[in-house]
Amino acid sequence: MLHESGRHFLQLPGPTNVPDRVLRAMDRPLIDHRGPRFRDMLRGLLEELGGVFGADRHVFVFASSASGCWEAGLVNTLSPGDRVLAFVNGFFGARWASVAGRLGLEPEVVEGDWRRPVDADAIAGRLAADARGDIRAVLVVHNETSTGVTSDVGRVRAAIDACDHEALLMVDAVSSLGVTPVRHDEWGADVTISGSQKGLMLPPGIGLCAVSSRALEAYERAGLARAYWDWGDMLRSNEEGVFPSTPATALLFGLVESLAMLREEGLERVFWRHGRFAEATRRAVSAWGLDNYCADPTAYSNAGTTVLLPDGVDGEAFRRETRARFHVSLGGGLGPLVGRVFRVGHLGDFNAPMLLGTLAAIEMGLRTVGAEVAPGGMEAAMDYLIATSG
Amino acid sequence: MLHESGRHFLQLPGPTNVPDRVLRAMDRPLIDHRGPRFRDMLRGLLEELGGVFGADRHVFVFASSASGCWEAGLVNTLSPGDRVLAFVNGFFGARWASVAGRLGLEPEVVEGDWRRPVDADAIAGRLAADARGDIRAVLVVHNETSTGVTSDVGRVRAAIDACDHEALLMVDAVSSLGVTPVRHDEWGADVTISGSQKGLMLPPGIGLCAVSSRALEAYERAGLARAYWDWGDMLRSNEEGVFPSTPATALLFGLVESLAMLREEGLERVFWRHGRFAEATRRAVSAWGLDNYCADPTAYSNAGTTVLLPDGVDGEAFRRETRARFHVSLGGGLGPLVGRVFRVGHLGDFNAPMLLGTLAAIEMGLRTVGAEVAPGGMEAAMDYLIATSG
Amino acid sequence: MLHESGRHFLQLPGPTNVPDRVLRAMDRPLIDHRGPRFRDMLRGLLEELGGVFGADRHVFVFASSASGCWEAGLVNTLSPGDRVLAFVNGFFGARWASVAGRLGLEPEVVEGDWRRPVDADAIAGRLAADARGDIRAVLVVHNETSTGVTSDVGRVRAAIDACDHEALLMVDAVSSLGVTPVRHDEWGADVTISGSQKGLMLPPGIGLCAVSSRALEAYERAGLARAYWDWGDMLRSNEEGVFPSTPATALLFGLVESLAMLREEGLERVFWRHGRFAEATRRAVSAWGLDNYCADPTAYSNAGTTVLLPDGVDGEAFRRETRARFHVSLGGGLGPLVGRVFRVGHLGDFNAPMLLGTLAAIEMGLRTVGAEVAPGGMEAAMDYLIATSG
Amino acid sequence: MLHESGRHFLQLPGPTNVPDRVLRAMDRPLIDHRGPRFRDMLRGLLEELGGVFGADRHVFVFASSASGCWEAGLVNTLSPGDRVLAFVNGFFGARWASVAGRLGLEPEVVEGDWRRPVDADAIAGRLAADARGDIRAVLVVHNETSTGVTSDVGRVRAAIDACDHEALLMVDAVSSLGVTPVRHDEWGADVTISGSQKGLMLPPGIGLCAVSSRALEAYERAGLARAYWDWGDMLRSNEEGVFPSTPATALLFGLVESLAMLREEGLERVFWRHGRFAEATRRAVSAWGLDNYCADPTAYSNAGTTVLLPDGVDGEAFRRETRARFHVSLGGGLGPLVGRVFRVGHLGDFNAPMLLGTLAAIEMGLRTVGAEVAPGGMEAAMDYLIATSG
Repeated sequence: MLHESGRHFLQLPGPTNVPDRVLRAMDRPLIDHRGPRFRDMLRGLLEELGGVFGADRHVFVFASSASGCWEAGLVNTLSPGDRVLAFVNGFFGARWASVAGRLGLEPEVVEGDWRRPVDADAIAGRLAADARGDIRAVLVVHNETSTGVTSDVGRVRAAIDACDHEALLMVDAVSSLGVTPVRHDEWGADVTISGSQKGLMLPPGIGLCAVSSRALEAYERAGLARAYWDWGDMLRSNEEGVFPSTPATALLFGLVESLAMLREEGLERVFWRHGRFAEATRRAVSAWGLDNYCADPTAYSNAGTTVLLPDGVDGEAFRRETRARFHVSLGGGLGPLVGRVFRVGHLGDFNAPMLLGTLAAIEMGLRTVGAEVAPGGMEAAMDYLIATSG
Repeated sequence: MLHESGRHFLQLPGPTNVPDRVLRAMDRPLIDHRGPRFRDMLRGLLEELGGVFGADRHVFVFASSASGCWEAGLVNTLSPGDRVLAFVNGFFGARWASVAGRLGLEPEVVEGDWRRPVDADAIAGRLAADARGDIRAVLVVHNETSTGVTSDVGRVRAAIDACDHEALLMVDAVSSLGVTPVRHDEWGADVTISGSQKGLMLPPGIGLCAVSSRALEAYERAGLARAYWDWGDMLRSNEEGVFPSTPATALLFGLVESLAMLREEGLERVFWRHGRFAEATRRAVSAWGLDNYCADPTAYSNAGTTVLLPDGVDGEAFRRETRARFHVSLGGGLGPLVGRVFRVGHLGDFNAPMLLGTLAAIEMGLRTVGAEVAPGGMEAAMDYLIATSG
Repeated sequence: MLHESGRHFLQLPGPTNVPDRVLRAMDRPLIDHRGPRFRDMLRGLLEELGGVFGADRHVFVFASSASGCWEAGLVNTLSPGDRVLAFVNGFFGARWASVAGRLGLEPEVVEGDWRRPVDADAIAGRLAADARGDIRAVLVVHNETSTGVTSDVGRVRAAIDACDHEALLMVDAVSSLGVTPVRHDEWGADVTISGSQKGLMLPPGIGLCAVSSRALEAYERAGLARAYWDWGDMLRSNEEGVFPSTPATALLFGLVESLAMLREEGLERVFWRHGRFAEATRRAVSAWGLDNYCADPTAYSNAGTTVLLPDGVDGEAFRRETRARFHVSLGGGLGPLVGRVFRVGHLGDFNAPMLLGTLAAIEMGLRTVGAEVAPGGMEAAMDYLIATSG
Repeated sequence: MLHESGRHFLQLPGPTNVPDRVLRAMDRPLIDHRGPRFRDMLRGLLEELGGVFGADRHVFVFASSASGCWEAGLVNTLSPGDRVLAFVNGFFGARWASVAGRLGLEPEVVEGDWRRPVDADAIAGRLAADARGDIRAVLVVHNETSTGVTSDVGRVRAAIDACDHEALLMVDAVSSLGVTPVRHDEWGADVTISGSQKGLMLPPGIGLCAVSSRALEAYERAGLARAYWDWGDMLRSNEEGVFPSTPATALLFGLVESLAMLREEGLERVFWRHGRFAEATRRAVSAWGLDNYCADPTAYSNAGTTVLLPDGVDGEAFRRETRARFHVSLGGGLGPLVGRVFRVGHLGDFNAPMLLGTLAAIEMGLRTVGAEVAPGGMEAAMDYLIATSG
């Protein structure tokens, strides 16, 4: 076995490479989470987070995995037995629906094509049929990390509006925030949830919910039991510059730094950069003769690309060899896709040589496990990167 | 105003000073939370955590504040409307009872004297009267961080056993784990919860539950809604070396290191050390002519001491001046104790000069705000430290 | 033996506690030491260093111990056989004179009283007698780290001027830079040398020389062999933004940060702060009934205090016990003072509780080895710190 | 201009990418450089360094650039006017000879072909002609970082022995130690010098000399002036576990860690790995239709490859664009090679995707500045890496 040397490439579609600046910002003594320095930090943080979400109202920050905020969004706005319409076109959408069911809601799942974005018309169809307004919320995943498919949330909003339906719109932006435009207010989203370990370039451990005024109104009536996730406590505490329970201070230090990095680069340039590396990746995939799992080119994800493996190639063996021989960690297939696809992350703090090292490792790993790969993937990516490097 | 120089002393009863070793262990690139290195790390971690809790069965690790595990303990074992007996002798006990109520349980509060430990006889009295066995759980706080009172959990167990009552015993060991002996199995506790930011010397962001076989049986019948906190998912995932949702990997890196530090020193020596610094603190407090809020010497906390301020002294002003002039952060009174007490932490990665610097700052801060303080506090602490330094 | 816990107090008169900010600034990937980012960094650094030295001309930065700059100052300005007048009132002055001798110069030593500052009159006497101008340089130590004695360099300059003598004035400011005012230009110093590990709060590994125009003229005529230390190479390289040999980049990263810290606090406040902690230390020493080794109160050092041990107390045993039992490292006696004194550093990134923890450890350590120490040292220091905390 | 994102690739032939483990090891509070923990650390360090140099006798560790040890080697063994035979086949050899001259020695330069290794026969010729034994030392550079040429030191030794000449053999192993076998004892080298920032993977700031018994005998007679570099002081101090002047403690912490990394991987595997990445690089260069500056395939360097640029390509523009557009820093030509070559480092803590990212950036940079580059470089490297990844 090769001894591991150099810096391992963590090319999952998140958690992603944490920039040294962020790691170093976390590597410092704690401060009193009820003292004046903390208060100042929190105030700035909440304001800046609003900018990243495109949200004018409150952003809630939890010590939790991102998926904890699925729960937070639901328990703060809904009541037992409430019907929620969950569009499922990937592994995470399915889990979100299942969380809703376990919390005592009635999820109505619209099964979508996993290789395609959310079908706003299908949602409209269901809502139109819901004359009594039983459906209290619509759940959509902005970017399905499992499939590399990004959906158009604006069209979902338009579909809801076209039906004149009152359902809340809840958006999972876990792997899109800081990667591709998230426009909470503009979309008319009611709850947009995210986490720290994707475009925000932090270690996992912070969950985020941006909320609308309507969501806060729904909070007042919501009957699901809640304690840890309670927005009311959070709102009152945050106004005083504290948290209702001890916050993940070290990760907040990191968040201050990662938000500074996004601000310095400028969100528009951050989005452009993600698009550039994603496109270079897709060109390599295509040149290799492999298929992007996402079948709709308008829905290609800029966070990560899910690639269909050639028949007969064992995805887990491929990932294992790529990791052991070439020191690059890739994401595997989730749920029904286990072994059939691999997922490559190209988000976060990333650049051209990191991408090309990653692509080279993929090509080498595929060849190592006997997959047929056409030559020219590296060139295709390089041509594109040269052309866009000016 | 004095410019802040040197290293600030964070002398709360937690979060506490994070050792450099732990900060540095967290300051490293993430690894694949579904890969082989993570798997190995998790296996070792769970085993080692069992040792710290004195627990043979599973320890659950959540990305959450410690108080999230209050919720985890309750929703995994109980059903809507279940009665729980909560002994309240401090701020955190009261919050735990309130969490139970918010989650749809029926908390029956036994109001204790905040200056004294849990009254096992009072618990026995209630249980004895509960012939029908309506009470499904007893909640006690091992060490009340708000008051500096440590209770004898073994006596609570004995009281339950004496009544031959089936109630589960749930223990909050947030500020006692790694400070004073926590004996989950020996106590016959069913759920013992804790967090990362006290005796484990980490930043906050990890919640822990050690569970008994009975608690896992209760899980099978428990009717409260749950998703994020679900032990079943966690157990199955952990067996495969993963987590059901993305874990707080960076904090887990830190946890590996802090557990190594505890192992290197030896838990018994860790406990002895905490007792030593606590006693030195108490001797200083006594020499100053101030009163320990804890009125029962057998229940003095080794994690933190809550000190009654002399009449007329504004606790918040005292803390503010101590922080600004002498660069030491102390804890304030919580709930009804705001302004009337201060709390000094002497737990975690701590030593004699840190303690004496802290005590000196307290004395200087008190004098700065005009409190009458008898001389001799430093000497009292120093005498004791010399005598026990061999 | 006590297990070491908490943060060790490194209370030498240098190397001193490195601030976390500085450690973290060093903890980052290197950059190309011939690239544009390095160039920008170096330019800013040299300008800022000039301000700290009070020097308008060049400051040379070497990858070396501070004492390497004794050599740099000599070999760049003098020729074999040149006579240098070295005033020796401590261990480091003696070593500097010995370095001069080993490099082929003729050191003429003026033996001073180690408990007193440089005697400018004695220097004047020698220079007045040197009608032929054989003495080419006068060497004085601004702050003798071995004895805790700070001298008045301005008076030395005046003495040289009064004799109308041409000798270069070389000043060792190793433990005074960033502690007490160093005024290279105002003093009319020709070479002022220093290092990274004292008032600049860095790890050791960088030596510094500030030079005058006269020193640069002397460089042109100087006949001593030199390569590594050559100022001409350094000057030309620095003008291009590089170094003649690979620089200690990581330490330079730290230097940028420590200079920022000094700038943020303001040098005058930095000096005031050092004076404050030094005075508090002296009051404790005095209250304990111990003698400051420095016998001239106008020459007390603000960087470190050298304390005479009571008869019969073994200084090495005292330091060993203080380190092992109370986790504070103190400096020992150097040269003839081994075992007879201890040296406590109160410089760098320091604050009141760190000082009081240190003083408490000293008192405890002294008592542990059986030294008679009057009570009241802590109070004396605390009284002074309270009075000056406003 | 592209905003810089991701981790910059520092692909100089040193200083090189410092592993996170090493950075983190340096990022910690200092310890007393005269205390027991330092003593233990130094003892282990010196022993381990001996193993890396293949040297049984002492290794001297200086706070200095590596080039400071050129000076250390010379001043500790030679006397003014001594003749030294310097074989010059690159920029660093030439500088070493010039250092000798500046220190008062008589360097006799054998000008070699910069594209070829040291010519042992030419050395033998000169020594054979030196019947009186005027030549006191022979200086050769093991790996010329400027040209990417590695010489066979064993043949130089054989040439000296064949002439039965007494000259000391001094070897510059700055960029070969930890990269390719350095066999101080086996070679019969008298002084082998190196530094921290190449194969030892540290930031610059530490210089090293391994010495033979003959070199230590020569020390006794050596007449050159010395102070900072004096081996006698160093030897006596090291025996007591200290240094004659304050050492670069933080870098020593890093050195302990980097030596541990070399030990864990095993030196033979480290050498094999360097050879592998070097060969992959050469295959890419060759496929691109470019020339390795080194004209002798038996002398190709495993530390870095110097590549001749096609006519008409401005090397500085190429490096600037590669850095700005593709975030990879390459070395430029030194001395007469400025603008005509570029140098790519493939040493230190390195792996396949880092190498391929680097090679891709080179190809993209070349194409950006209009150089003609044949396709297939990436494939050539990848083929080789696949074949050797087992």
